[in-house]
Amino acid sequence: MTKIVQCVPNISEGRDIKKIEYIIEPLKNQAGFKLVSYEPDKDYNRTVVTLLGDPEAMLKPLVEFFKRAKEKIDMNKHQGEHPRMGAVDVTPFIPIANIKIAECVEHAKALASMVWEEEIPVFLYARAAQDPNRESLPNIRKGEFEGMKEKIKDPIWKPDYGKNEIHPTFGVAAIGARIPLIAYNIDLNTNDENIPKEIAKHIRQSSGGFQYVQAGPASLTERGHVQITMNILDVGKNPIYRIFETVRMEAKRYNVNIMSSEVVGLIPKKALLSTIQYYCERDQIEFDPNMTIGQIVELGKKYLSLRDFEDLKIVEANL
Amino acid sequence: MTKIVQCVPNISEGRDIKKIEYIIEPLKNQAGFKLVSYEPDKDYNRTVVTLLGDPEAMLKPLVEFFKRAKEKIDMNKHQGEHPRMGAVDVTPFIPIANIKIAECVEHAKALASMVWEEEIPVFLYARAAQDPNRESLPNIRKGEFEGMKEKIKDPIWKPDYGKNEIHPTFGVAAIGARIPLIAYNIDLNTNDENIPKEIAKHIRQSSGGFQYVQAGPASLTERGHVQITMNILDVGKNPIYRIFETVRMEAKRYNVNIMSSEVVGLIPKKALLSTIQYYCERDQIEFDPNMTIGQIVELGKKYLSLRDFEDLKIVEANL
Repeated sequence: MTKIVQCVPNISEGRDIKKIEYIIEPLKNQAGFKLVSYEPDKDYNRTVVTLLGDPEAMLKPLVEFFKRAKEKIDMNKHQGEHPRMGAVDVTPFIPIANIKIAECVEHAKALASMVWEEEIPVFLYARAAQDPNRESLPNIRKGEFEGMKEKIKDPIWKPDYGKNEIHPTFGVAAIGARIPLIAYNIDLNTNDENIPKEIAKHIRQSSGGFQYVQAGPASLTERGHVQITMNILDVGKNPIYRIFETVRMEAKRYNVNIMSSEVVGLIPKKALLSTIQYYCERDQIEFDPNMTIGQIVELGKKYLSLRDFEDLKIVEANL
Repeated sequence: MTKIVQCVPNISEGRDIKKIEYIIEPLKNQAGFKLVSYEPDKDYNRTVVTLLGDPEAMLKPLVEFFKRAKEKIDMNKHQGEHPRMGAVDVTPFIPIANIKIAECVEHAKALASMVWEEEIPVFLYARAAQDPNRESLPNIRKGEFEGMKEKIKDPIWKPDYGKNEIHPTFGVAAIGARIPLIAYNIDLNTNDENIPKEIAKHIRQSSGGFQYVQAGPASLTERGHVQITMNILDVGKNPIYRIFETVRMEAKRYNVNIMSSEVVGLIPKKALLSTIQYYCERDQIEFDPNMTIGQIVELGKKYLSLRDFEDLKIVEANL
């Protein structure tokens, strides 16, 4: 049985399409894995790249991709809404089929070692972390590129691969392994940055909200509205409909509506099915657990106002 | 400044009004504190008694109340929806004004010692717990009256006051100190016990829901419907409207509605004000933070369909 991982490197460039194309070129048309998508975001100034396939086959092309990012991205000039500390900011390996998380950790370490040969310092994070302090990516990234110059000198923050100084233009990278999570954002029809900030507080675990939700505000000036940007760490326990409806309810007090929502990267079929099932039951229409991917996409758009969404955003459509 | 605590003993009798009156009689017309309410529940077969005032003044009358409960209640014959392990099941001291939680712990210990002189074994719980294992009341109470006969023989479960055996008819008591919580129940217009069970799972902390909510199902056969019974441990972080609206949303998939809701014991003014504010903002009507208690009660009934609710259910109306 073929081992399949999802690997989702994030690069700190979301505006210059020529640069992005140049950096991801080594990931195209390779044997053993597929470049599923790359999603540049101008406001975040960040591109989420999604690979699916055999992790062994990904390693060498990924190193080439890191080298090209180092060549083209100068973090001293980078500005964007999303927190970041390196030109390739974070690279998780995620088990999808016939592979355990422990093997993903080994692939993360192998990549980290090869990346440090290119003089890029690497922190191992999430399940690959060698220190409980480094399990949380936000914890490692606190201070961002600008603060990392000093932070990395503290022995506590010596990289797992590399010396206690950042690469002067690349910064530092985080490479790790984690179980699938869903990166999900809800767009609000307002420019008021306080509204997503308040609502994010109410829905995220850290301040009293849902147990498996991380959330924060973002202001999308290119698109002209704000959003709540989220990671859903366990969508079985905190299904999307519950988060979506709670945000809708909270937004009402500001006389604000949900315009649309988006999935960043891929989403497993069952994560959408559980939400579609809620709405079918609520509306008393028949729910078919064996519906096609096309129908899942259509109903996802109908109930969650998903934008920029198509069959290939579903993990299973790529296998 | 007068020290004011709320003390909320729960007795395992909610049906025989003559017995209840006899047991609570020592708490009536005493100097230094007030018997604010006693709320018998036939389905729970339990009465929640609320005292407000000087904790010193409460101690001797409380011991008399424990003695009368021991005289009249035989736990071997008790049946009811609510988990229980003793004739006076649980007695928390809650700081309200000019008193710290640490002093409430001392009053809990003083009462526990006096109650054990009456041969009733006592566990100190919540903030008065002498062992982290005993902070959680459900943890102590697991097995209930029936299981406690054996459980208490385990050295881990030796009472804080008493020997390792239960009182043959009273069982055991928990006495402790805790910060204010809100005991809040939502009634659903159905008899299907699975529905509140499922919804409770979605909203409570332990299975992915809101951080400061404990919740479970209850079937009110006397009233002819089910309810979700909850403790809101931090109503500042998990306001009532958010829980109410999430339950309403979840209930829709079962084609079920919220009929009414109820506050057991007292509720501080601000806990209702924050919820009323949400609805006023949502409905774009003016919100007056200085509204009278009468207005709070009226709007609480309007928005939360509160039943059996009146001015004296608000803490501040009793001060």
